Amino acid sequence: MKDHVYKLIELTGTSTTSIEDAIEKALKRAHKTVKNLCWFQMIETRGNIAKEKVQHWQVTIKVGFTMEG
Amino acid sequence: MKDHVYKLIELTGTSTTSIEDAIEKALKRAHKTVKNLCWFQMIETRGNIAKEKVQHWQVTIKVGFTMEG
Amino acid sequence: MKDHVYKLIELTGTSTTSIEDAIEKALKRAHKTVKNLCWFQMIETRGNIAKEKVQHWQVTIKVGFTMEG
Amino acid sequence: MKDHVYKLIELTGTSTTSIEDAIEKALKRAHKTVKNLCWFQMIETRGNIAKEKVQHWQVTIKVGFTMEG
Amino acid sequence: MKDHVYKLIELTGTSTTSIEDAIEKALKRAHKTVKNLCWFQMIETRGNIAKEKVQHWQVTIKVGFTMEG
Amino acid sequence: MKDHVYKLIELTGTSTTSIEDAIEKALKRAHKTVKNLCWFQMIETRGNIAKEKVQHWQVTIKVGFTMEG
Amino acid sequence: MKDHVYKLIELTGTSTTSIEDAIEKALKRAHKTVKNLCWFQMIETRGNIAKEKVQHWQVTIKVGFTMEG
Amino acid sequence: MKDHVYKLIELTGTSTTSIEDAIEKALKRAHKTVKNLCWFQMIETRGNIAKEKVQHWQVTIKVGFTMEG
Amino acid sequence: MKDHVYKLIELTGTSTTSIEDAIEKALKRAHKTVKNLCWFQMIETRGNIAKEKVQHWQVTIKVGFTMEG
Amino acid sequence: MKDHVYKLIELTGTSTTSIEDAIEKALKRAHKTVKNLCWFQMIETRGNIAKEKVQHWQVTIKVGFTMEG
Amino acid sequence: MKDHVYKLIELTGTSTTSIEDAIEKALKRAHKTVKNLCWFQMIETRGNIAKEKVQHWQVTIKVGFTMEG
Amino acid sequence: MKDHVYKLIELTGTSTTSIEDAIEKALKRAHKTVKNLCWFQMIETRGNIAKEKVQHWQVTIKVGFTMEG
Repeated sequence: MKDHVYKLIELTGTSTTSIEDAIEKALKRAHKTVKNLCWFQMIETRGNIAKEKVQHWQVTIKVGFTMEG
Repeated sequence: MKDHVYKLIELTGTSTTSIEDAIEKALKRAHKTVKNLCWFQMIETRGNIAKEKVQHWQVTIKVGFTMEG
Repeated sequence: MKDHVYKLIELTGTSTTSIEDAIEKALKRAHKTVKNLCWFQMIETRGNIAKEKVQHWQVTIKVGFTMEG
Repeated sequence: MKDHVYKLIELTGTSTTSIEDAIEKALKRAHKTVKNLCWFQMIETRGNIAKEKVQHWQVTIKVGFTMEG
Repeated sequence: MKDHVYKLIELTGTSTTSIEDAIEKALKRAHKTVKNLCWFQMIETRGNIAKEKVQHWQVTIKVGFTMEG
Repeated sequence: MKDHVYKLIELTGTSTTSIEDAIEKALKRAHKTVKNLCWFQMIETRGNIAKEKVQHWQVTIKVGFTMEG
Repeated sequence: MKDHVYKLIELTGTSTTSIEDAIEKALKRAHKTVKNLCWFQMIETRGNIAKEKVQHWQVTIKVGFTMEG
Repeated sequence: MKDHVYKLIELTGTSTTSIEDAIEKALKRAHKTVKNLCWFQMIETRGNIAKEKVQHWQVTIKVGFTMEG
Repeated sequence: MKDHVYKLIELTGTSTTSIEDAIEKALKRAHKTVKNLCWFQMIETRGNIAKEKVQHWQVTIKVGFTMEG
Repeated sequence: MKDHVYKLIELTGTSTTSIEDAIEKALKRAHKTVKNLCWFQMIETRGNIAKEKVQHWQVTIKVGFTMEG
Repeated sequence: MKDHVYKLIELTGTSTTSIEDAIEKALKRAHKTVKNLCWFQMIETRGNIAKEKVQHWQVTIKVGFTMEG
Repeated sequence: MKDHVYKLIELTGTSTTSIEDAIEKALKRAHKTVKNLCWFQMIETRGNIAKEKVQHWQVTIKVGFTMEG
């Protein structure tokens, strides 16, 4: 079995609906550039507020993917 | 453009349904006293348990708002 | 009133749907062995990815329960 | 059962005798302004020194209380 | 000299009198189940409040003990 | 000598010129409401960017002041 | 695919030779009681000293394993 | 309003004059490659010393920018 | 008013009776070597256990003192 | 002397033999893409387990390198 | 090339003008006793306040220097 | 049994071969000045890189020793 090397990048996904959706949006965008995403870990959850409601959930994650070659 | 000063207060919202709802409830309550809420950041998520289910999600957030004047 | 002693155990629940569901699954499983669960606190949220989507939400919690006797 | 919202404030109590006494003094003072104090958590313990003895124990706590209405 | 392996468990002791007493109560209870307790480290101190006084000191510790065999 | 109790509030000062100026601006604003400010500690430094320059330095501090009475 | 629940336990392995060996010794001992160990993460490395040499490497790890049933 | 995804990169700027200048230098260099820089947060400040003076201020920041497309 | 420079040293005091006493013992010992101790902050509390009781409270503190000249 | 700007990337190296080897493997792979690697710092050590042995050491590091131009 | 050993000491420099100046003052004072200072890292920034202005910037740093011999 | 007081100093050992060797080198050097070293804990592991290899492992530890008298 090969010894892989992984790279971790940090992304902030945003969503008007939920924490999970903000993460999914970040992964979807990352997938356009990087194909072999493996795992993520949540780093921070923030949000901006309009009056008394969360306008955008802003979730920062680290995403790990296999470095080829 | 003016140099604003912001105050941050710490709140724990609770909800029987979800993490997002606990945060929204905290913001709704804060809005009764403070009108210009700008952003929040999650600090901690806890909960109390009845038998094998989460009874209340307890989410602690810091909320920032503009100090007038 | 009695001075209770509590034990805290650490669990990772997993779910294909949401963070809240991963926690509920961990509590449900813990309840098979330990009856008097009192509270939990979230420690970490991670997940594994299939292509561009979260396959499993992996949420690590500490769960506190009363030690009898 | 109602979904409460709690506010957390940070206080530093001081005492010439002990850590516990510094916390009790902070709670006693807070109670003059806020009636429904619920819980606290210790954040930091410091002290100033006169020669070779602790002159004042300075204990910083977060105190949570129910927001009415 | 043998290479020991130790297990660490996390406990919350409670007391109406002091931080030290809450820790001693946790150790006393742990000793009923585990005989060879070696050391502890404090993790967190919290408390619940009745009016303006600490009702219960809640001290969370990690306790290490030798695994036999 | 009296055992004082201090309250800590969290503020974010902003400035177009420097970290020190952002802190001074937060203290100046706080002084309008609270007279006996004693000390501060830096919590976090952030900033927003216009093209390739820092537009506003955003410095979050905790400020401690004596509670009267 | 099933949603597993994992338990994490904390162990301190000790060794006279290396950090890696201390971890392997902890896993070997844990395996006597728990069969389905999955992963570990290092928490802390300490050691006791005899004169000018490390006598025992003491490495604390969290070990995760699948909860059956 | 669109749900943006942001990427965060970590940079260390250096300067012989000040902390602020080290950050501005990092942003200026980043702008050569990435156009839509939005915000930064300070992570760490270090420096190397020549005799008794700071030779280079070394300030590590995270910089967030919008991912296009 | 002069701009002082302070040095911070780290000490672990031990006591069979209480956390406060362990700190006082560390300060008493430090005072033999360093005369102008100013303040301390608690870093960590640990202890070793004999059967079911704390044998020694081990409290690690940082102590600050003015550097003369 | 020039004021350099450095970029930090995060990598996870894996190895069946040791922590040091996992780091060396990550650096070797990074060097294929980035030539002027300067320093690294360890962030986290994890591993997956087969029965009672570490199968892969997984060491996450931050690596800093000079940004040209 | 020799394998050096470095010692790190912790200092708090104070200044009425800026964070950078407080650090320079600490290094200048340290240089009276220790000649081969190599690097520093900022640990904490605090300050005392007179009315609405920072009276003294208090910056705590760790300073590393080569141990001779 | 006497209540000892311990002092903790921070050292960075360096080695071209391994993490363990860097720690042993720091202890060996410390032993020249301080005879009664008791324990250490690892604080941080860094390294400088030549091309694609670790040139020096730089391991920072805290070392505790008994204060005499």
